[in-house]
Amino acid sequence: MTKVQAYASQEKGGKLQLWEYELGELGYFDVDISVENCGVCHSDLSMLDNEWMMTQYPFVGGHEVVGKVKAIGSQVKNLEIGDFVGLGWHSSYCMTCEQCLTGNQNMCDSAVGTIVGRYGGFADTVRANMNSVIKLPAGVNRDNAGPLFCGGITVFNPFVQFNISPTARVAVIGIGGLGHMALQFARAWGCHVTAFTSTESKREKALKLGAHDTINSRDTEAIAKVANSFDLILSTVNVKLDWNTYLATLKPSGRLHYLGVVTEPLALNVVPLLFKQTSISGSPVGSPATIAKMLEFCSRHNIEPITEHFPMSQINDALDHLRSGKARYRIILDRE
Amino acid sequence: MTKVQAYASQEKGGKLQLWEYELGELGYFDVDISVENCGVCHSDLSMLDNEWMMTQYPFVGGHEVVGKVKAIGSQVKNLEIGDFVGLGWHSSYCMTCEQCLTGNQNMCDSAVGTIVGRYGGFADTVRANMNSVIKLPAGVNRDNAGPLFCGGITVFNPFVQFNISPTARVAVIGIGGLGHMALQFARAWGCHVTAFTSTESKREKALKLGAHDTINSRDTEAIAKVANSFDLILSTVNVKLDWNTYLATLKPSGRLHYLGVVTEPLALNVVPLLFKQTSISGSPVGSPATIAKMLEFCSRHNIEPITEHFPMSQINDALDHLRSGKARYRIILDRE
Repeated sequence: MTKVQAYASQEKGGKLQLWEYELGELGYFDVDISVENCGVCHSDLSMLDNEWMMTQYPFVGGHEVVGKVKAIGSQVKNLEIGDFVGLGWHSSYCMTCEQCLTGNQNMCDSAVGTIVGRYGGFADTVRANMNSVIKLPAGVNRDNAGPLFCGGITVFNPFVQFNISPTARVAVIGIGGLGHMALQFARAWGCHVTAFTSTESKREKALKLGAHDTINSRDTEAIAKVANSFDLILSTVNVKLDWNTYLATLKPSGRLHYLGVVTEPLALNVVPLLFKQTSISGSPVGSPATIAKMLEFCSRHNIEPITEHFPMSQINDALDHLRSGKARYRIILDRE
Repeated sequence: MTKVQAYASQEKGGKLQLWEYELGELGYFDVDISVENCGVCHSDLSMLDNEWMMTQYPFVGGHEVVGKVKAIGSQVKNLEIGDFVGLGWHSSYCMTCEQCLTGNQNMCDSAVGTIVGRYGGFADTVRANMNSVIKLPAGVNRDNAGPLFCGGITVFNPFVQFNISPTARVAVIGIGGLGHMALQFARAWGCHVTAFTSTESKREKALKLGAHDTINSRDTEAIAKVANSFDLILSTVNVKLDWNTYLATLKPSGRLHYLGVVTEPLALNVVPLLFKQTSISGSPVGSPATIAKMLEFCSRHNIEPITEHFPMSQINDALDHLRSGKARYRIILDRE
């Protein structure tokens, strides 16, 4: 039996402390990963704080895992001990429902969240089903790959789902943990890229990350000037903006796609949707096959998140830093 | 010079009276249609009442025209005198913009509305550019074809635009002028069809028109029971419903598509969009090529609108009948 050293909180919003649990018997399809490093995502904070009313304590976060396979169940054929792998938001899928059978495992109703009702990657070891553990291609930098498995796939997925053409004009709202990766993907995808940001200091950064131009996301007049411009807008923010103004910046048949959770209802006008055949949508992370495609794409185009590293033992400092809104742009915890 | 006998209103919301105007010289690309009959659409009323602030008086409505070509300009190559044709919401497109060049003429910024700043089909003659006049295939019943050119194409267009699969489960909200055609199209398209209606008397009718089942559109409990059911919902109503309840009835990657103008903002929650990768959208009529496809599809599947006929001289009675909400389901004015 394997004992796992993890960082757990015993209560809502509590400090994380070293805590040990027993992993139990290795199932036929289980893969045990020796964690090398693990990204910290805003949803780790939301889960720690039980914002979504589904957290169980002791709570062990961490769902942007990079590590090495150290044990596999008897029926695991796709991975070998010693493989470098990643694990994201989901740690298993049913593989029998319509969504799983059509390659949309990320929308499987029975998909298990890596940190929901089980223990995640803020630990020396994490277990997952073989169907959710993805091998890292050679060209991907392991030290910085963790955030690709949740934040990265979230912004990459719409390009695949909606078969976005490299001729498209793409805009990204919000240049943060998600947006700074979206800019890189959109640029490498061959698109024209516009960054909407309200932070003056991020404008230069956005251009370096791949934006062809930037617009102040709170300057309604500047936004009105780019009416009828974009085929795809990716919104990565979690604040309320004037969505109808953004709708007007879509070209006919364009799409305003939400990747950030906005708690206020959208209050969208129907008439512009009708006249221009535009769509509003959202999506959650991505399927294992899409994650694999993303990793290959990152390797080919030298795309990686911009990260700040903390030793895993300083996990509470890392969480405070993320909570303060000062992370630029993703945080990774390295196992000592 | 041709003089046209038309039914015109001289003022906002006024009665229509016989009125004569001079058609002017036939342009190179013009087609003059001798009107046989013309559908009455709710947007004729909206224009008569200047609801959209773009009506000019004298106002001649009518944009669901069926008739016979009686004159063509010297450069018209696609039509001949004597051809039976139809004309819908648009009477010309620029044919040079990106939308026109990609087959999306119905979203051309310079498209001219048949009854916007010009005179429509409540007349003995109507003129249009050759690029918006569509030949009627042999199998289409001319007496009832008018409403296909606005109401019909509006509900047919999304099946083509979104490449809806015959394996899809489709729901139609509202069984009226648009919805009763949507049911027929969806059924002939090979889909499973559900009709949402609040009118008890329309339930039987909906089943006859192609619905496999019906649900009361105001019974939130009944709607909640069909959560996760539909790939496509076509909303044809112009009243506010509990849209978030309808969102929950979409399957992952499903679409809630608006064809009726709802004046109140939609107030949609983002989280269900995100978790299930669903889309909200709308669309306006359809392109000439899609209209031609629809006519062929109608001919193959014996689809036609259910209509009530009035002689064109009783146009004011016809408009009153439509205004009363009692039309079942489209009105056609026949020239005597």
